[in-house]
Amino acid sequence: MNLREYLALQQKLVDAELDRLVPAETTPPATIQRAMRYSLFAGGKRIRPILCMEAARAVSGGVEGALAAACSLEMVHTYSLIHDDLPAMDNDDYRRGKLTNHKVFGEAIAVLAGDGLLTLAFQTLAELDAPDERKTRLIAELATASGVVGGMIAGQVFDLEGEGRPPEAALLETIHRAKTGALLRASLRMGAIYAGADEEQYAALSRYGEHTGLAFQIVDDMLDVEAPSEQLGKTAGKDAAQQKITFPAVYGLEVSRRMAREECDQARASLLTFGDRAARLHELAELIVQRKS
Amino acid sequence: MNLREYLALQQKLVDAELDRLVPAETTPPATIQRAMRYSLFAGGKRIRPILCMEAARAVSGGVEGALAAACSLEMVHTYSLIHDDLPAMDNDDYRRGKLTNHKVFGEAIAVLAGDGLLTLAFQTLAELDAPDERKTRLIAELATASGVVGGMIAGQVFDLEGEGRPPEAALLETIHRAKTGALLRASLRMGAIYAGADEEQYAALSRYGEHTGLAFQIVDDMLDVEAPSEQLGKTAGKDAAQQKITFPAVYGLEVSRRMAREECDQARASLLTFGDRAARLHELAELIVQRKS
Repeated sequence: MNLREYLALQQKLVDAELDRLVPAETTPPATIQRAMRYSLFAGGKRIRPILCMEAARAVSGGVEGALAAACSLEMVHTYSLIHDDLPAMDNDDYRRGKLTNHKVFGEAIAVLAGDGLLTLAFQTLAELDAPDERKTRLIAELATASGVVGGMIAGQVFDLEGEGRPPEAALLETIHRAKTGALLRASLRMGAIYAGADEEQYAALSRYGEHTGLAFQIVDDMLDVEAPSEQLGKTAGKDAAQQKITFPAVYGLEVSRRMAREECDQARASLLTFGDRAARLHELAELIVQRKS
Repeated sequence: MNLREYLALQQKLVDAELDRLVPAETTPPATIQRAMRYSLFAGGKRIRPILCMEAARAVSGGVEGALAAACSLEMVHTYSLIHDDLPAMDNDDYRRGKLTNHKVFGEAIAVLAGDGLLTLAFQTLAELDAPDERKTRLIAELATASGVVGGMIAGQVFDLEGEGRPPEAALLETIHRAKTGALLRASLRMGAIYAGADEEQYAALSRYGEHTGLAFQIVDDMLDVEAPSEQLGKTAGKDAAQQKITFPAVYGLEVSRRMAREECDQARASLLTFGDRAARLHELAELIVQRKS
């Protein structure tokens, strides 16, 4: 199976599992279930759940059962997008080519849909069919990566506070390590934990997650400069308009491109210990650097 | 120790534990820690954590260690107030006599502070010093009670959608069972789970939680009609202004008062199995019905 076919299959698996985990559209109050589902099934690439499952595969050779744990990451990612798009935050009308949640359901429901997905992520992990000791580690990992100290919420705040400040390398790194890096690294770590990784395997997958996370963000910033809105499915050039601190703003496009390549290579180097079982993780690192949207 | 002294002591214990659990004001990004702390330490009565600890005491005779679990309930309660007060939701400027979170920190930080407290609640439970089996049960209980099916978020949506609709008893019950009832019941259940309750004890404390939860809401609705704003520390009469479905609107004040008393009596009747160890729970049920703010 080539990478494209493999990704399509994984996305289908994730979509089916999310559909199973999220209350049906008819469950009262229907509005909130519809709002959560609208953003969950708005065409996300499912990068985090796929990385989680591949980390589990690298450790144990199989991914059975890791799917539900993987979906908790997509719930957290989606909640963060819904809240991030709110008028009080980034004020985005479009995301992945579709109207943002609050444009369809109103701000009140959008806030609650985000809250609901975050809550459901932890509920999903608490109810996994797995040993309790692993479930509590998964929950602690997800909460830390999403949280207010070095996690995603911290990153959002650093990002908000960074707007309009001089583009400075140290601040840039602080923002991105927290804002996108922590959850991407957690995707790998949660796959590792689920599959019962030893310390060396956990550390190797953490390193892979850190490097791909940074590569992902560098490319994201570059695409905001280079790609047209239609290709991105969201408004391009917003970073510059909002005076965000980005990799192209700090280093220029050429150096940013080299940095992304370097991170990708370092990510792949950390996979040595897993041999062939990490084949897809190698491909995914390349994909993250070469993507066009 | 009389009830007033006992409550003051419990509140101090909860405050000290919350202070330990929430990142220091100086932890970067400081803004989010300050915003979370602002609302957490805005004079809340700590009813949920105190009920949680008393449930643990009723089961095991002691409350050691239950304090951190109890504090997760206050984090969830506080997050819900912050989001509920947002302009897109109830648009409140004052809460407990102080400016609401978004009036002090702005809407973006208020959204994130709520997200942060919700995340921290689950992290706190995942990192408890307790058997993993109990921790996962506590997390599932809190997530369900806060969630989109019969939980607090569902209640918020029912409430929003009920505005302006004819005051009808069935809808009123649906709203309040979810909006405030689920988390109050969870407070008792989590204390029970933490202390290793058997099924009978768990069921008895659940019943106590359901009845006090309903009593609490009836009184809340009555106070909004009867008490002046200064006494409440928030704008009185808002329910009527927003055409909310409330107990006084459906049943009138006199019947509402009788219903609250009846719920209190039923709550107390469910404590029989615990004997003297439930003495404070008896007093708390009375306090909930007799409170003036």
